[in-house]
Amino acid sequence: MINYLKEHEWKIIETNYDPAHMLRSESIFSIGNGKMGQRANFEEDYSGPSLRGSYNAGIYYPDKTRVGWWKNGYPEYFAKVLNSINWIGMSWNLNGETLDLNQCDVLSFKRELDMQNGLLSRFFEVRLSNGLLIQANIKRFVSMADDRFGTIQYELMPLNGELNFNLSSYLDFDVHNSDSNYDEVFWEKFETREVNRIPICSSQTRKTGFKVVAAMQNTLETEGVLSKNSIRKVSDKKIEEHFEGSVSKGQKVTIVKSVGILNSLLDTDMNDRALLETLSAFHGREFRKNYDRHKNEWADIWKTADIQIEGDVRAQQGIRFNIFQLYQTYTGKYDQLNIGPKGFTGEKYGGATYWDTEAYCLPFYMSTASKEVALQLLLYRYNQLDKAIENAEKLGFTNGAALYPMVTMNGEECHNEWEITFEEIHRNGAIAYAIYNYTRYTGDDRYLHDKGIEVLIAISRFWVQRVNWSSEKKKYVMLGVTGPNEYENNINNNWYTNYLAKWTIDYTLSVINDLDRGFIEDSEKEAWTRVSNGMYFPEENGVFLQQDGFLDKDLSPASEIPKDQRPINQHWSWDRILRSVYIKQADVLQGLYFFEDHFKLDTLSKNFDFYEPLTVHESSLSPCVHSILAARIGQPDKAYQLYLNTSRLDLDDYNNEVHEGLHITSMAGTWMSVVQGFGGLRIEDNMLVFRPMIPHQWSSFTFKVLFRNRLLSVHISNAGTDISLEKGSPVMVKVNDEVRELK
Amino acid sequence: MINYLKEHEWKIIETNYDPAHMLRSESIFSIGNGKMGQRANFEEDYSGPSLRGSYNAGIYYPDKTRVGWWKNGYPEYFAKVLNSINWIGMSWNLNGETLDLNQCDVLSFKRELDMQNGLLSRFFEVRLSNGLLIQANIKRFVSMADDRFGTIQYELMPLNGELNFNLSSYLDFDVHNSDSNYDEVFWEKFETREVNRIPICSSQTRKTGFKVVAAMQNTLETEGVLSKNSIRKVSDKKIEEHFEGSVSKGQKVTIVKSVGILNSLLDTDMNDRALLETLSAFHGREFRKNYDRHKNEWADIWKTADIQIEGDVRAQQGIRFNIFQLYQTYTGKYDQLNIGPKGFTGEKYGGATYWDTEAYCLPFYMSTASKEVALQLLLYRYNQLDKAIENAEKLGFTNGAALYPMVTMNGEECHNEWEITFEEIHRNGAIAYAIYNYTRYTGDDRYLHDKGIEVLIAISRFWVQRVNWSSEKKKYVMLGVTGPNEYENNINNNWYTNYLAKWTIDYTLSVINDLDRGFIEDSEKEAWTRVSNGMYFPEENGVFLQQDGFLDKDLSPASEIPKDQRPINQHWSWDRILRSVYIKQADVLQGLYFFEDHFKLDTLSKNFDFYEPLTVHESSLSPCVHSILAARIGQPDKAYQLYLNTSRLDLDDYNNEVHEGLHITSMAGTWMSVVQGFGGLRIEDNMLVFRPMIPHQWSSFTFKVLFRNRLLSVHISNAGTDISLEKGSPVMVKVNDEVRELK
Repeated sequence: MINYLKEHEWKIIETNYDPAHMLRSESIFSIGNGKMGQRANFEEDYSGPSLRGSYNAGIYYPDKTRVGWWKNGYPEYFAKVLNSINWIGMSWNLNGETLDLNQCDVLSFKRELDMQNGLLSRFFEVRLSNGLLIQANIKRFVSMADDRFGTIQYELMPLNGELNFNLSSYLDFDVHNSDSNYDEVFWEKFETREVNRIPICSSQTRKTGFKVVAAMQNTLETEGVLSKNSIRKVSDKKIEEHFEGSVSKGQKVTIVKSVGILNSLLDTDMNDRALLETLSAFHGREFRKNYDRHKNEWADIWKTADIQIEGDVRAQQGIRFNIFQLYQTYTGKYDQLNIGPKGFTGEKYGGATYWDTEAYCLPFYMSTASKEVALQLLLYRYNQLDKAIENAEKLGFTNGAALYPMVTMNGEECHNEWEITFEEIHRNGAIAYAIYNYTRYTGDDRYLHDKGIEVLIAISRFWVQRVNWSSEKKKYVMLGVTGPNEYENNINNNWYTNYLAKWTIDYTLSVINDLDRGFIEDSEKEAWTRVSNGMYFPEENGVFLQQDGFLDKDLSPASEIPKDQRPINQHWSWDRILRSVYIKQADVLQGLYFFEDHFKLDTLSKNFDFYEPLTVHESSLSPCVHSILAARIGQPDKAYQLYLNTSRLDLDDYNNEVHEGLHITSMAGTWMSVVQGFGGLRIEDNMLVFRPMIPHQWSSFTFKVLFRNRLLSVHISNAGTDISLEKGSPVMVKVNDEVRELK
Repeated sequence: MINYLKEHEWKIIETNYDPAHMLRSESIFSIGNGKMGQRANFEEDYSGPSLRGSYNAGIYYPDKTRVGWWKNGYPEYFAKVLNSINWIGMSWNLNGETLDLNQCDVLSFKRELDMQNGLLSRFFEVRLSNGLLIQANIKRFVSMADDRFGTIQYELMPLNGELNFNLSSYLDFDVHNSDSNYDEVFWEKFETREVNRIPICSSQTRKTGFKVVAAMQNTLETEGVLSKNSIRKVSDKKIEEHFEGSVSKGQKVTIVKSVGILNSLLDTDMNDRALLETLSAFHGREFRKNYDRHKNEWADIWKTADIQIEGDVRAQQGIRFNIFQLYQTYTGKYDQLNIGPKGFTGEKYGGATYWDTEAYCLPFYMSTASKEVALQLLLYRYNQLDKAIENAEKLGFTNGAALYPMVTMNGEECHNEWEITFEEIHRNGAIAYAIYNYTRYTGDDRYLHDKGIEVLIAISRFWVQRVNWSSEKKKYVMLGVTGPNEYENNINNNWYTNYLAKWTIDYTLSVINDLDRGFIEDSEKEAWTRVSNGMYFPEENGVFLQQDGFLDKDLSPASEIPKDQRPINQHWSWDRILRSVYIKQADVLQGLYFFEDHFKLDTLSKNFDFYEPLTVHESSLSPCVHSILAARIGQPDKAYQLYLNTSRLDLDDYNNEVHEGLHITSMAGTWMSVVQGFGGLRIEDNMLVFRPMIPHQWSSFTFKVLFRNRLLSVHISNAGTDISLEKGSPVMVKVNDEVRELK
């Protein structure tokens, strides 16, 4: 655990300049608006370690898959999220010397991410080699009000003499990915031009042909005088505006840079003129006014999404950081987009969409944003149904069976480990479950009836073909799968997968029967029913077995693994991990979380007590599910301990990997731990139900819930649970067994 | 099946020029001498499809491993066999036009591999675009008498007018691998020089630093006049000798090219002078005399290794091709070498050594060559024991446990699929079994007692640590393995692996007890005994189950797979193959083959009848084992049918893959099918035993067996079995139940 950030309810604050934290801070202080993401790289030149990252949502490169031996069915490519145009760059020459914090004497330094307002600011005082003492104040944001724009206000003041400066503010397409194999260049067809003295550049991605167009305007103010007499320099891959000037000691030079970026995947109007007009309007409004508009958007988000925790500043900061980063990553505006595990904060997990979206993110957006945002996530999969069917065909399935990809940018599979790509098929079940979950939460069955049913039928068809009859067991078995616990591969009868499969078939049949619209032949229904009724579930003494043969393993608890061998995925060979009993992330328990209402509390407890000691939680998606179950079965201390594991995962960089980017999707899991775990929120018979508990470290916590056109505020303290209706018509809710009417 | 070669008892003959067969023929007509291998590329320029391949034994490049996601324990590199110096090259300009069969009108063409004498010859008549009619006669071999030399006699004759020729005979290091990722160059530090007017060049492999030195001498004879007045040209990576001249219609121009090649892995004297002296002596002897010396070596090999089949020319040709290619690949001369699955006939299977050596090749060399050759194969593993122990340590094993690599060039693992690298550990058992097999066959226990016992102990230690106690089964189980049937991955309790493990432990204990030398503590012996006694074996009604849960599969026989879906590895996705019942190659049956004497005939039959119908034989190593078992249990037709599957695998290119190279190691399996299958050869109580049968397609067959300083000739026909002692002291043998004394 690394603890270098200041505690603050609304801000993330770093007060020391330490190159050792640079990559980590670049991830943590990332800003985004759902369409652009920008790591907290410095604007000025920096010769120290840094992972440059400016991302445009949905823009990827289909990289060669790398495999030892090719297996039939492998995807043709692996999607790589591309580092895109560097739009923040400013190169300062101060009295003949380049400003570079890695070459200066840094006297003071502060970096601050204001989560309430979505603003990244930085302050420093440095002494250059030439003796110049300089103070800097920098602010930047990418606008939530108009997601095509990002802007920077960069202010310098000499503290010990006159400053002669030479500034280049630039846009640069000469960018690389740190994970490219042979320093490949992914951007091509660079074009640069000037329209009405505004420099514009554009480039296209290789193979995929995504186009990104960027234009910038810069305004320099020196001792109160605006300067527009810049010199433009246009080169192959870069456009620059140069400013020269001088200010005397104690006076400021300020540049405001506004950049507009179009992304051909998402912007329908890719016309220069349209961009320039809106950019001019944006730039003309000045930094302060654009910031106000941007702030207002954030205020709206917080109105429905905020969680307040009293009595624990670190927990407060942690949960707000998670909510903030989720909304920086995904706003529900574009149907082409989804939520990547690392959002726009790094290059890793190149594909955008995993089952994380359905299992973790959907509940967050259902409760904190308007219904349309969650619906957008469902539509994303609906729109890719054809490709999921093609994907299943490629693997030998027929009759319109669908297998959704493990990782995808556009519906095509782009992950290439056979044990995952071909076998981690429970993802299909999570996609079916999301349709049910959405319908249950919103009470709106239009999506289910109009579109979702097609997805459900295609997934059910997959399950029915994926099982086979075992003459030995006289049951349908599902062989060769990988469950959510990826520390087991190619196992038989993963309880979770079998359960999801049976549930999908049953749910689909019930929807079909309700609709009475003759989607499928009776003979097919009968075949489905046979599979559902005959599905095999490994079980022993009330414990659902993760897979066939699970009890053959050495069942020593994870607490017996020597500390210096944890996490095991960094210390043990893969075969040792596989044959060990240790569980990477909730597997049987993920099923009990999804289908809690199918089981008695005693069954939940028995399985929790069996599996939790064997679980090493080496996925960020694991502790939240265990925490929610622990809360449900009355183990509050365990629930809180597991919650701690997840709530500040990135801020405290538990696993020393934050330099690669943040764990965006698991942040939704943290939100679930608070609202579903401690808050005990459930939907039962169309009613919101709360079974609250409060960690004794907290004095109270308050969260908002959007539920069927109502906004509720839930305040939980040791004194009790207050629920108020902030918006919408009266509604009945249940707190434990007590029904309340909210007006 | 492709059938374009002529039938002949001793020769492989191609009589048509067909570019579609070019790559295939380049593999089939390969020549080698255990140190150099040369695909049957044309000497002259050829612009059609071709896989250039000149290989120097043991020379490899440690290529980057390519994996989707890195797993702990993966090897750092993947060994790539390198295409080395092109030593055969001759560029002919004939009346102003380049000789290139891809650009000529080919009037007749013949390629012939004389297996009796190890000679590749080629004849063609072509018409060039310029109208010239030319006839060519080319012979080449790589010398078995001195393995540093290869030589070519290339003769041209104009048939319709005068020929003005310009010839460049060259050595060229500007070579590439067809499987390189980015056209990487693997050879560096090129040097070229002339000593005594003999051009020499050398180069080194990147990273591994293997050095190859080559020198050539050329002698041109035009109408009876020798020409040495060549012009030498030395460039960066190539040395050339140029000849010009003319011959009249019906007269010949003949060049003899002799090349000496040193290989720093195998040649201790890398000195130019030594090479040049021997090259001059070689070249000075003329082609015919060198060929005679070479032929004599082959005659010696055939004396002990030949198999004669009467009444079936195709079978005769097939078995001789296999024996010939095995001896071209491995002669037992160098302790650094082993037998790669494709020998020196292609680039695939970059690593040299697989378990094929112990399971298939060892019996062949034990029976056909002097004991020292088989011993060399055992010493290879003994010399790599330290690396096998390091390999096991890397995976978390302790106490001197050894895991031999799946694929290796020098003892280090260089295969990188987790399900193979970490899990296909039965290879360790085959290495132990080879020690037993050698000792049983030769009756010489010096290797066992001096060295083999160390290998056995280290392997036993591995097995003892690789199992765990199952409280469920009250047995030791072995989880997470891959058996020889690689169409199952990460399975539990593979019967074959468990059986080998228990056998290794028992055998090692018995050797230790015999030797009474206190190799290991009593407490360790006791632990081993506990594991051996408690080992779990899945079984049902007398059928040994390939693995836990095997009977859950759909047990439809392979005959029900539609023909257009065979081989399944080219048509089915990997997950479908994995969850199907179909068996790639002998697995349980491999165990029954190794340990036939542990089981009753009835058990062998029962298991054969269960597994054979489920086996798709998609490994060249499979049908031979099934064939031997079928012969043993009295199913001669099945035995012959399976034999056909293997005997002409490459000549008839059953799987359309011979262009990549020949299946060298499985050729030893074909030999086993004849000698152990039809011949029924076994060693029982230090005695040779034969249980012969003869396929009704054959009138008789005869094979030689070297056994404990004796050479036996075994002639089997419907009239009976004649065994004669060709060399050595009298010996008792058994034919079926009849004991005979041979004098």
